[in-house]
Amino acid sequence: MNRKQPIFYLCSDALGDTAEMVVKATMQQFAVDEVNIKRYHYIQTEEEIYALILDAQENGGIVAYTLVEPNLREVMKRSAIEHDVQAIDIIGPLMQAYIDTFNDSPKEMPGLQYELDAKYYNRIEAIDFAVKYDDGKNIGGLLAADIVLVGVSRTSKTPLSIYLAHKGIKVANLPLIPGIAPPSEIFTLQNTLIVGLTMDPNHLLKVRTERLKVIGLPNTTSYTEYEPVKSELNYGNMIMKQLMCPVINVSNKSIEEAAVEILGLMNKK
Amino acid sequence: MNRKQPIFYLCSDALGDTAEMVVKATMQQFAVDEVNIKRYHYIQTEEEIYALILDAQENGGIVAYTLVEPNLREVMKRSAIEHDVQAIDIIGPLMQAYIDTFNDSPKEMPGLQYELDAKYYNRIEAIDFAVKYDDGKNIGGLLAADIVLVGVSRTSKTPLSIYLAHKGIKVANLPLIPGIAPPSEIFTLQNTLIVGLTMDPNHLLKVRTERLKVIGLPNTTSYTEYEPVKSELNYGNMIMKQLMCPVINVSNKSIEEAAVEILGLMNKK
Repeated sequence: MNRKQPIFYLCSDALGDTAEMVVKATMQQFAVDEVNIKRYHYIQTEEEIYALILDAQENGGIVAYTLVEPNLREVMKRSAIEHDVQAIDIIGPLMQAYIDTFNDSPKEMPGLQYELDAKYYNRIEAIDFAVKYDDGKNIGGLLAADIVLVGVSRTSKTPLSIYLAHKGIKVANLPLIPGIAPPSEIFTLQNTLIVGLTMDPNHLLKVRTERLKVIGLPNTTSYTEYEPVKSELNYGNMIMKQLMCPVINVSNKSIEEAAVEILGLMNKK
Repeated sequence: MNRKQPIFYLCSDALGDTAEMVVKATMQQFAVDEVNIKRYHYIQTEEEIYALILDAQENGGIVAYTLVEPNLREVMKRSAIEHDVQAIDIIGPLMQAYIDTFNDSPKEMPGLQYELDAKYYNRIEAIDFAVKYDDGKNIGGLLAADIVLVGVSRTSKTPLSIYLAHKGIKVANLPLIPGIAPPSEIFTLQNTLIVGLTMDPNHLLKVRTERLKVIGLPNTTSYTEYEPVKSELNYGNMIMKQLMCPVINVSNKSIEEAAVEILGLMNKK
């Protein structure tokens, strides 16, 4: 069995996103390139669970499940043992810990994660905001934002703005371009957290060169030569000094890691 | 203890994102408005775990942890039992199931989820792409996209594009506006999945009215009146028929749910 490509069966009464994230995080710990994921979502009946378990047994797969209905969880547990299939309950243990600790009982309604409530619409609005005010497109964005990210091209302003928007934060970003003065409004912002993003020149060179490869452009511009890139970064750092804003060096940092730093700065405000 | 606001302690040798997602999904099942989350990230030593457990004991909190180093996991387990704290291992059970089933051993390196590999850069590139080609900004986007989303204003084209981009898919979107013919190129696309997004008129009215409230505009335009909205949707549906594309009605569907449908259409292609 250990020669086959591993298959994970996601079983959920909703979408199975949570189980998928846990599977992916787990599999990063193993030297496996591709994980084969088979999604069984919107599961409502015992029969669907039996079918899944038989499928997993036949293919030697592992099941990761999120089911909130106690009966379905029982069926899953029993059926997995009967057919000698490994089935891991992703949210059950935490639900039980919460019930035990706080004496509370669950609603037992699937899909509550996707409720279209005020928080949800807020997040959607924040994503629209980030897209609309990406790349310094409009002064209005700087004035209305919770956070403004500044940095030279390819210091990950856009993906960071979007990532933070998923948390419901309104983020605008402004590119720093030598020869083009930033709009004067940015120097007068009062309640906005401004964060500068910078990189080591060699890292930025690498990122930009990779990028031109990906989008299929020839690598011949000052965009990817050491001296111009270095002086561009110097210019960016000078503006950040004028703004007196915290600066994060994002070389070798993932979006997720940089976002945690920014959220930390936000909490300190 | 059950009168206090519940506190969750996230403990991770990386960021704790996975544990946070599981906590949030779990807590949706309880009638709790706000969950208090305390993040302990980049944990490397036994001492840090002892400190966390004491803190959780004092505040009656629950621990959700993702630790890949076996020794740290042991320390966590033992220390939690000793101090009568509930501590749930989020990825351990799945790791163990994988080890048992496939006879493999883990790398035991924290933070592998955030590796800056080709896949990571691909995802960043897809997010940049979605932002750049949002709202029909450029014909080039339609031609280079894997998926083109079409629909009238506020049918969630932008957040859906961004959500799919997180999966590394290049998505452009094109608004359908009565009186403005879509660019002719869209009728000639060969290998692109075009998906139409539509809504029930009453739902779209509600979404638009809510939106104007959020952004603080008065509610007096044809944007939020039944008849104009209905004829706008009719126009949109007519264009979708001309495009002969699949259409998803996103009324009462979250972004995550609509995305699963679109991914399903993509797999069928």
